[in-house]
Amino acid sequence: MREVAVIGTGLVTFGEMWSKSLRTLWVEAALNALEDAGVDRVDGITVGCMSPGLFNGQEHLASLLADELGMAGVPAMRVESACASGGLALRAGFAEVAAGLADVVLVTGVEKMTDVDGADATYALGTAADQDWEGFHGITFPGLYAMLARIHMQQYGTTREQLAKVAVKNHANGLLNSHAQYHLKVSVDDVLSSTLVADPLRLLDCSPITDGAAALVITTVERARELGGDRPLVKITGSGLATDSIALANRGDLAELRAVRLAGERAYAMAGRSPRDIHLAEVHDCFTIAEILAVEALGFFERGAGGPAMDRNLTSLGGKIPVNPSGGLKAKGHPVGATGVAQVVEVVTQLRGEAGQRQVEGARVGLAQNMGGSGGSSVVHILEVA
Amino acid sequence: MREVAVIGTGLVTFGEMWSKSLRTLWVEAALNALEDAGVDRVDGITVGCMSPGLFNGQEHLASLLADELGMAGVPAMRVESACASGGLALRAGFAEVAAGLADVVLVTGVEKMTDVDGADATYALGTAADQDWEGFHGITFPGLYAMLARIHMQQYGTTREQLAKVAVKNHANGLLNSHAQYHLKVSVDDVLSSTLVADPLRLLDCSPITDGAAALVITTVERARELGGDRPLVKITGSGLATDSIALANRGDLAELRAVRLAGERAYAMAGRSPRDIHLAEVHDCFTIAEILAVEALGFFERGAGGPAMDRNLTSLGGKIPVNPSGGLKAKGHPVGATGVAQVVEVVTQLRGEAGQRQVEGARVGLAQNMGGSGGSSVVHILEVA
Repeated sequence: MREVAVIGTGLVTFGEMWSKSLRTLWVEAALNALEDAGVDRVDGITVGCMSPGLFNGQEHLASLLADELGMAGVPAMRVESACASGGLALRAGFAEVAAGLADVVLVTGVEKMTDVDGADATYALGTAADQDWEGFHGITFPGLYAMLARIHMQQYGTTREQLAKVAVKNHANGLLNSHAQYHLKVSVDDVLSSTLVADPLRLLDCSPITDGAAALVITTVERARELGGDRPLVKITGSGLATDSIALANRGDLAELRAVRLAGERAYAMAGRSPRDIHLAEVHDCFTIAEILAVEALGFFERGAGGPAMDRNLTSLGGKIPVNPSGGLKAKGHPVGATGVAQVVEVVTQLRGEAGQRQVEGARVGLAQNMGGSGGSSVVHILEVA
Repeated sequence: MREVAVIGTGLVTFGEMWSKSLRTLWVEAALNALEDAGVDRVDGITVGCMSPGLFNGQEHLASLLADELGMAGVPAMRVESACASGGLALRAGFAEVAAGLADVVLVTGVEKMTDVDGADATYALGTAADQDWEGFHGITFPGLYAMLARIHMQQYGTTREQLAKVAVKNHANGLLNSHAQYHLKVSVDDVLSSTLVADPLRLLDCSPITDGAAALVITTVERARELGGDRPLVKITGSGLATDSIALANRGDLAELRAVRLAGERAYAMAGRSPRDIHLAEVHDCFTIAEILAVEALGFFERGAGGPAMDRNLTSLGGKIPVNPSGGLKAKGHPVGATGVAQVVEVVTQLRGEAGQRQVEGARVGLAQNMGGSGGSSVVHILEVA
């Protein structure tokens, strides 16, 4: 297997972008990544996007976007695993380079969720749940995660305040990220007094509806060294992908996200790393409870210790293991197909030492964890300074 | 790059399957492939499906299906490139095995197009066209292919009868395929007197709306040899993927399918083969003109010679290069996400010498060409008896 490195990153500012189309957002992120990498040609493109059909009435997206970038002809593929589509785009691009099917791949994610055509965003997002066993009964994601939160609270004594502290931390980090959708200082009281969405989850426990795109340029480590430059070389050392029953009713243990644990174990094994080797992590905090479940499933904390870790600020910038220094889905925003790629953009930025005010000191090994639905799929990547 | 072989194939009978769900169809094909391969475990699943969101109100499909098969946990990814999604599923699975990320991958395609939820099938299929530049004006695929037919007729003198002969040949082949949607003997007169759909294309120039699924099991050549058996070992020697502007208005030359030519060239180069080495081909005959364009773009005939080749029966069973021995999309049916996988099932069946009455004698090298939209993307695979 050929070794793979990230040589370029690109983002757009996330938010409600009423004047920018899916195409515009994507091309902006792609051009930023190509410029950052210093390359103007690629021989592969991957696009993570959850549902351009339902959001935008447009399938066949990878070809459309390759053309929009002036690269019609280049091999391009769209991948989908609901909100884990971005992480999957990196996995697919990684496989192409590792196998030798491509040398330089533009890995991208995008979602245009406002100004939607046809269905509303809640319906479109709901198609990530099991339509026969969950959607049929009318439940949507806040309700599914509310059930996961209730179980965690009952089983481990996780408190309402601990959940709120995830939002407080991530909004604090988001204040330091110019690409974030929200620049809001949020207190525990703000979270606890925000509108109830699905008991116990409130508005400030939920990630927002976001338009956005993110991109990476990846190539072989050999080629990355040739392209040179003064910045640290960032290798992708682990890639783990896993699934689980997407319907909660079909799972054995609802106090753990099994797909996250499996994807993490696979990525750690491939990289020859363990949770304690990780200097920072971007995890999929689509709801506050999701971050607590993720840090436990990834082995940063024992089961049930994710809540208490919030009381001790262990995942804050400067803590034992900074989690979501970018602001996470909560503050940075959650354009679903783009999220997994944007997480890796943050990890690479941190490993390059270019994260400015939110820099994690001495970061040399980082992890990104992306998740689909209520944990029906997960993708974990480990990146390291070579 | 590790060498990859196909060790199992599985199909369902294609058609309007009102009593079978997407899940049921997919599991049936997957189990058939696993049984054929003689394996009960895989460490990867790929799913080609164009639009489960629009057709069935269900995204997050790969996890859902892995679970439905009793394989929750296994890494699974859905890929999409409109009607080329099946070919792309093989490409993605091939990359996983070639890179060493997985050893045994279940490659699948599925589409449930009847009994659709929400949008109608024509709308859903239309999202494979450029919504801003084509869909906005109300054109759908019969109209787009009708324009391609008109240009080919004008530029090369291709006749209405030559188009009809594609349907006649493929329906004749379909009579010999028990999995085909239609078992109809069709004459040139039948085609020419069928309902006009989009001038010059008539009903019998069009592939149908179909429910179906198809599956392959792939692994390393080394592992395939260990699993042994008496059947010929079928290797995947070439994989080519290409894109083009999906909007016809943005293309330079409408008398050629550039994505098909590029994907073919890439597959030939990888396999070290040329068009004259190919013993049989399954090509993407979503409309009769598409087959003529494909056999030219793949280099089986010079540009403009695809029509006259029909007059001389060069692509019939027993002809110079049998094309669509399975009956093609025209007679076998076109469950869009499944089509690219089903094409490879046919090629493998032929290379194994198991195609019964439609067997191409002495077939040792075969090609499968899958296409998205009106040629906005294409995937070509070359398979050979080791």
